[in-house]
Amino acid sequence: MTWKAIGIFDSGVGGLTVLKEVEKALPQEDTIYLGDTARVPYGTKSPETVTRYSTEITSFLVSRDIKLLVVACNTASACALETLKKHFSIPIVGVIEPGARRAASVTRTGKVGVIGTEGTIRSSAYTKAIKRINPEIEVVTRACPLFVPLAEEGWIDNEVTRMVADIYLGGLKNQGVDTLVLGCTHYPILKKTIGESMGEGVQLVDSAEETARTVAEILRNSSLLRPASEKGNHHYFVTDVPAGFIKVGNRFLGGALGDVHQVSLEKEGTQVKP
Amino acid sequence: MTWKAIGIFDSGVGGLTVLKEVEKALPQEDTIYLGDTARVPYGTKSPETVTRYSTEITSFLVSRDIKLLVVACNTASACALETLKKHFSIPIVGVIEPGARRAASVTRTGKVGVIGTEGTIRSSAYTKAIKRINPEIEVVTRACPLFVPLAEEGWIDNEVTRMVADIYLGGLKNQGVDTLVLGCTHYPILKKTIGESMGEGVQLVDSAEETARTVAEILRNSSLLRPASEKGNHHYFVTDVPAGFIKVGNRFLGGALGDVHQVSLEKEGTQVKP
Repeated sequence: MTWKAIGIFDSGVGGLTVLKEVEKALPQEDTIYLGDTARVPYGTKSPETVTRYSTEITSFLVSRDIKLLVVACNTASACALETLKKHFSIPIVGVIEPGARRAASVTRTGKVGVIGTEGTIRSSAYTKAIKRINPEIEVVTRACPLFVPLAEEGWIDNEVTRMVADIYLGGLKNQGVDTLVLGCTHYPILKKTIGESMGEGVQLVDSAEETARTVAEILRNSSLLRPASEKGNHHYFVTDVPAGFIKVGNRFLGGALGDVHQVSLEKEGTQVKP
Repeated sequence: MTWKAIGIFDSGVGGLTVLKEVEKALPQEDTIYLGDTARVPYGTKSPETVTRYSTEITSFLVSRDIKLLVVACNTASACALETLKKHFSIPIVGVIEPGARRAASVTRTGKVGVIGTEGTIRSSAYTKAIKRINPEIEVVTRACPLFVPLAEEGWIDNEVTRMVADIYLGGLKNQGVDTLVLGCTHYPILKKTIGESMGEGVQLVDSAEETARTVAEILRNSSLLRPASEKGNHHYFVTDVPAGFIKVGNRFLGGALGDVHQVSLEKEGTQVKP
């Protein structure tokens, strides 16, 4: 059991920010990453469809014998986590709970902002999670659908992105939040612009780091950690042809992406294409 | 045969602009529309994946007994049309050929611009189609990935959209094209901004109208038109839950959208959900 890999999935490439933190925290662990690039994005789709896709992916990863699953996609964490926990017996970690915990611990004014995809914001998952930790905290949310395409277009330091950020974030800023949860794995790429738009004194919370900490804690508590002397291997699967994922993924991981294989999840009996 | 419906598909809601023109040209005809909302968008995905999705959809529509198929999605027309024509025996009409014909006929300077998704532009389908008609025409292309999310966000008359249009279209404008093909069914929604950015004297070509003309011509030549006295019915299918499609679709069709049903294409034996 100890030697099994950690499974991580996302709708596409964004979850690599979480993989990166898991790798940093636990360099001895193997990981298996799946990006559902043939059906990306999840953020605009219904909870039912996102749950169906997440279940298919979890079945695939569980069939490859993982010891823990990280749902690195915020939308999937918001919509599908409970269903996955009900249907699969391994520990499953989403990104919402860790992000919420972090936000609740860093806010001083008790006013927290959350941005994410339409699916994540509509689910109120962050609001519920933060209020479970501290019901006194006021949570202000805003869906930012253009941030993902802007990040994918590579318009990182760009006048258009600054203007879009000002439009999306103006309301949160005016309401005086002192902490902003980046509730989508793509958003850390736009961290600089988002930070400048929110202004100094607003702390940006990126779930990736806190999620990696949670993963390490669970494995440690269950005595499932590999010896620290080991060096983990990383395997990548995608549902569309790998070219686009490799290009953007290397940007995310600083060129360190290994082999990427295409799989089909839709037909009965998952097949790895040669 | 005459009484069968016309099948129309798109990755999502955009193809309704084509449906609207088909309905205007042939009000006596029944139509069956499928929007693949669970897997939208196609424009960022590989030709292989777009072809697989298009084949699944065509099988579904053919099983519902259509007399002609319109591939209303530019990306699917660019990537999958030849494969579909090889595998299915009904007449199949894409949107590239009609748009190319129109552009070739309206340009006076012989310099035509084409904008579309990454998939459409990468395929060079418009360039090839225009050059087949007139090899003398110079074709300048540009992928505009942010136009679809901007149209879906509803930022139609907006400073950000104007700025994005100026960035994307500046090069085409400088190269002096006098005709611009809107090579994506979402783009007509941004027609005003695109037109202003290109400046007066540049003619915008929207494939929808020309595609409807082609459909009418094929049916007339094959004696497959229903009597003009009839009134057609319109059926809609989507692959995600219908709510989002209904909302945006009514915006496209001016509130005239009928019942929308959800279907699953991914498992063997397509199922209509109750």
